[in-house]
Amino acid sequence: MATTREILLRAKSAAPQLALLTTEQKNELLLACADALEQAEDTILAANAQDTAAAKDTLGEVMLDRLTLTPSRVRAMADGVRDVAKLPDPVGIELDSFTAPNGLHIRKISVPLGTVGMIYESRPNVTSDAAALCLKSGNACVLKSGKEAFRTSCAIVSAIKDVLRKENLENAVNILDDNSRAGAAEMMTAVGLLDVLIPRGGKGLIRHCVENSRVPCIETGTGICHIYVDKDADLSKAVAIVKNAKTSRPSVCNAAEVCLVHKDIASAFLPMLEKELSGGEHPVEFRVDPSAAPYLHGTAASDTDFDTEFLDYILAVKVVDDLEQAIGHIAAHSTHHSDAIVTESVAAARAFLQRVDSAAVYHNASTRFTDGGEFGFGCEIGISTQKLHARGPMGLAALTSYKYVVTGNGQIR
Amino acid sequence: MATTREILLRAKSAAPQLALLTTEQKNELLLACADALEQAEDTILAANAQDTAAAKDTLGEVMLDRLTLTPSRVRAMADGVRDVAKLPDPVGIELDSFTAPNGLHIRKISVPLGTVGMIYESRPNVTSDAAALCLKSGNACVLKSGKEAFRTSCAIVSAIKDVLRKENLENAVNILDDNSRAGAAEMMTAVGLLDVLIPRGGKGLIRHCVENSRVPCIETGTGICHIYVDKDADLSKAVAIVKNAKTSRPSVCNAAEVCLVHKDIASAFLPMLEKELSGGEHPVEFRVDPSAAPYLHGTAASDTDFDTEFLDYILAVKVVDDLEQAIGHIAAHSTHHSDAIVTESVAAARAFLQRVDSAAVYHNASTRFTDGGEFGFGCEIGISTQKLHARGPMGLAALTSYKYVVTGNGQIR
Repeated sequence: MATTREILLRAKSAAPQLALLTTEQKNELLLACADALEQAEDTILAANAQDTAAAKDTLGEVMLDRLTLTPSRVRAMADGVRDVAKLPDPVGIELDSFTAPNGLHIRKISVPLGTVGMIYESRPNVTSDAAALCLKSGNACVLKSGKEAFRTSCAIVSAIKDVLRKENLENAVNILDDNSRAGAAEMMTAVGLLDVLIPRGGKGLIRHCVENSRVPCIETGTGICHIYVDKDADLSKAVAIVKNAKTSRPSVCNAAEVCLVHKDIASAFLPMLEKELSGGEHPVEFRVDPSAAPYLHGTAASDTDFDTEFLDYILAVKVVDDLEQAIGHIAAHSTHHSDAIVTESVAAARAFLQRVDSAAVYHNASTRFTDGGEFGFGCEIGISTQKLHARGPMGLAALTSYKYVVTGNGQIR
Repeated sequence: MATTREILLRAKSAAPQLALLTTEQKNELLLACADALEQAEDTILAANAQDTAAAKDTLGEVMLDRLTLTPSRVRAMADGVRDVAKLPDPVGIELDSFTAPNGLHIRKISVPLGTVGMIYESRPNVTSDAAALCLKSGNACVLKSGKEAFRTSCAIVSAIKDVLRKENLENAVNILDDNSRAGAAEMMTAVGLLDVLIPRGGKGLIRHCVENSRVPCIETGTGICHIYVDKDADLSKAVAIVKNAKTSRPSVCNAAEVCLVHKDIASAFLPMLEKELSGGEHPVEFRVDPSAAPYLHGTAASDTDFDTEFLDYILAVKVVDDLEQAIGHIAAHSTHHSDAIVTESVAAARAFLQRVDSAAVYHNASTRFTDGGEFGFGCEIGISTQKLHARGPMGLAALTSYKYVVTGNGQIR
């Protein structure tokens, strides 16, 4: 058992060596880690069986399914690590290069952040994904797994460490032995040891980290996403987009929670929407503002329904007078994750895209596309809903900083 | 008297309008603000006279000089604002543009951060500089001035607000009425109202903000900067660089505090250095590690001398066995601001530049060049010593974030 501070110090000690690895060295390590995960399948599944047995009375069905590994899920984890090996190396890129007025040659070069802390909940594949992404970006990582997946996460890290040990890089990937709140609290105050802390999980975990971390922290996740159906919308396109954004995967942050409808098309559009969303295996419950009540059956919306991330088959609906009111509503209620307009009007689309201040703003597409894979980044560390450092889907580049490399010939000031 | 919360809300309410201003509108505002500062010269000087009178018994000579305005200093402030008008607009730049695998067209566009908080100490020109830089980058700002300069800062903001009011943008630039610690504390906890907090001033202020702010905060400033004189250094070049880095302006963060010397050239180099730095109006005091004592007169270095930002005519000196030991010392003691190697060896320079993990790393040049103006940014918000968001000298781009503007034709996932 190592203390949290010992583990943080180990990670920091590994960072300089990791920063110097070549792309080829990192990719070979990743491929070896993927093989090791497959070879450790029995050990990982045995640990997972203990985790699922311990959690079966406390976790709901969906969460228990997320926690449970199978041979094919272990192979998928290994393939995920192989996919990271295929991504371009984000380190050592010349981001800018110029000769300053004083004659110095200045190059801005991407470098690893150094040490990355991640605090997350119960999905075991987050452990292997995070380790792989940090390795590829030359960062040492310190992971704090959710307690339900703790044995599984430790087995995964152990398989990875066996590979890293052969290259004297054992401390590149670390998991806290202290799986309590005290361990998490120590990470949050590890100024000078961690360069960034990334929480991944539910709203409570993220708020707790953002409000308590003294280490720079990236706020991820919470999405109260809006679809505004404009008076000039193609109504069948709008129905398809709202249906997809609400029902294709309601539990994720880029799912829509609110539909705003222009008053001129409310009487035509809302009955179409109700017809499409009310049937099927998972009928959507509408939380209806008085403005929309004449056109739609549902529950009267409460005060909080327009500020709630339902993560369920529930949609809050409101009719607005115009584009201006829609933009105002979004400014007041959005979490600035992803918001969309459906319209055939170029002017309305331009105004919406310019004025709505969210990480991703959409014209005639589902908010569900806010995702590292869909954006073509090949992976995703998380989706930032803050504005510093990274915004929206974070790919490997979000795990880098830069430095200025300055070459002179004796210049003094 | 407005409460701090009222002022923060006002700033937030102004942000959307500011984000939409064209470059021409912003530049016209800035030029009008510059004129207004000159026209308000009498009012500003009267307020400054009150500030200097109140501070003359408590502030030292240097600080009192920094606080004191003259007609020519007011004109210099106005010219500083005019210089900001000449800089390129950092907002609305297409940083990236691509078509994702799903056919969506995605553009990454720079946008203002929104609302910027600044807490700073007693130099009045920081008030006009900060207001101008925030205006140019489309951000609303909330300023908390040091108490010594409070009346002066309020007079400056008042002149600027008179200009902004004519465009209904009065709330774009704000200064706290509550000039106490409580006001600062409220800024640090204004999650959702401030997008970033930038402290500027002494180490105590910056540590306090970094450790207590729940708003994302950018750590600026502290510089324990090193010059490593390699065995293959041109010794006269090295003397000139160390002299410049130490003595050209010892009170600033990019001044050198430590000189590391390769053992092979210590007996030749250190007497040269002593001869050059010991004379003149401000002789340098050497804090000498035992390894350097045979070659140099000075005070024996204490345990803390290699971890101290002297900001004075004091230089800690140590002899190292080789490049490896120099890099190790810097890793252990640097604040990762600016560090330099003096050498004619390409291999040594390359290793140093790659392995020293600081915001700016130099080969054969003085650390004093770490500065927004010297880097050709035309201005400087501060020098970041953290790795998230911005590192090193922060120009106008550091006051921006970005958003993804996604255009589709009915795409669903």
